Amino acid sequence: MTRTARKRTGRRPGNTESRQLILDAARAKFATHGYEGASIRSIAQEAGVDTALIHHFFTSKDGLFSAAVHDAVHPEQLVAAVVGKRRALRGLGERMVRAIVGLWEGEVSRNQMSSIMRSAVSHEVAAQLLRRFFTEEVALPVARSTGKSDPEVRAALVTSQLVGLAMTRYIVQVHPIDKLPADELVACIAPTIQRYLTGALPVSFRG
Amino acid sequence: MTRTARKRTGRRPGNTESRQLILDAARAKFATHGYEGASIRSIAQEAGVDTALIHHFFTSKDGLFSAAVHDAVHPEQLVAAVVGKRRALRGLGERMVRAIVGLWEGEVSRNQMSSIMRSAVSHEVAAQLLRRFFTEEVALPVARSTGKSDPEVRAALVTSQLVGLAMTRYIVQVHPIDKLPADELVACIAPTIQRYLTGALPVSFRG
Repeated sequence: MTRTARKRTGRRPGNTESRQLILDAARAKFATHGYEGASIRSIAQEAGVDTALIHHFFTSKDGLFSAAVHDAVHPEQLVAAVVGKRRALRGLGERMVRAIVGLWEGEVSRNQMSSIMRSAVSHEVAAQLLRRFFTEEVALPVARSTGKSDPEVRAALVTSQLVGLAMTRYIVQVHPIDKLPADELVACIAPTIQRYLTGALPVSFRG
Repeated sequence: MTRTARKRTGRRPGNTESRQLILDAARAKFATHGYEGASIRSIAQEAGVDTALIHHFFTSKDGLFSAAVHDAVHPEQLVAAVVGKRRALRGLGERMVRAIVGLWEGEVSRNQMSSIMRSAVSHEVAAQLLRRFFTEEVALPVARSTGKSDPEVRAALVTSQLVGLAMTRYIVQVHPIDKLPADELVACIAPTIQRYLTGALPVSFRG
């Protein structure tokens, strides 16, 4: 799968380089074998490093998984791309759904995505990641960018629709959502996200 | 938990009665211990029947799980209640969300619901159940009742939002969706379901 710098160049990789090699190897292994199936040992082997170095950088498998997701998602860049320089409310829902579906279907295949998500939903560590990387670091900043009321409620509603979309497209595979071209899917879901982000909420929430 | 008729009355329960005792025991055990944790043996013990009778009625654990869900959901009654006698399109989304959240939070507690769903998402049998009992037997008949185009697409979109709602309220527990009173949740989600069921779809689908 991934080639290691050590294999390529024969020299010992530096710390930053080693860290990235481990993250790349971890993402490949988690994608192929799921959270349970990917061992620290197999990831170390793939990255061409000692398992001790993984523990040194990431403490635990949870820590490594978390760092690998963060490295794949780049929440700040995602938010900046969705919000846009002009912070236009128009099209915000569409930009958000397009960015998220693009993320899901960009780097890894749908099968890999399915494997990651399936193993993810059964682990509390993954639930924490979803809350942290998706709701708190992506949906909430996007909701805050609009200046509308109750960004926490809006971010949670956005999460509910996009998590459900991922579930029905990749895990449960509900026909025809599992087969729709991304563009058609975006067109169907975008108005929902637009309303959650910018529409009037039917209730006034406190705090 | 559930008392068995045999324990109550000392007589040997009939076939229909035994079947119901098994289903009640299965739901209690699946709710408490999840799909993996609930054994056929423990369910038989709870119901006061022989394990052979469970195999006779339901063939396998999958079959029992499926029957227990069907027995809890009563899809036809749910659809009739949501669609209503006058088949009014107005309020359809709200009736649907209210019925589903009521089902989730009615008979079993939120903790039990969380346990069932958590174990469910990691099993193909549960994915099949969701497609069959929710999308095909609930969402699709409701979508068909409106006479609008593309009921399959609409039913899948409805499933995506409601599955995501269940995930964020019971499994991942995304704040504040996990704590919102049911009425406020219904008010936020209902317009989405209304649009998926009765609104203009942004794309024209074939087949």
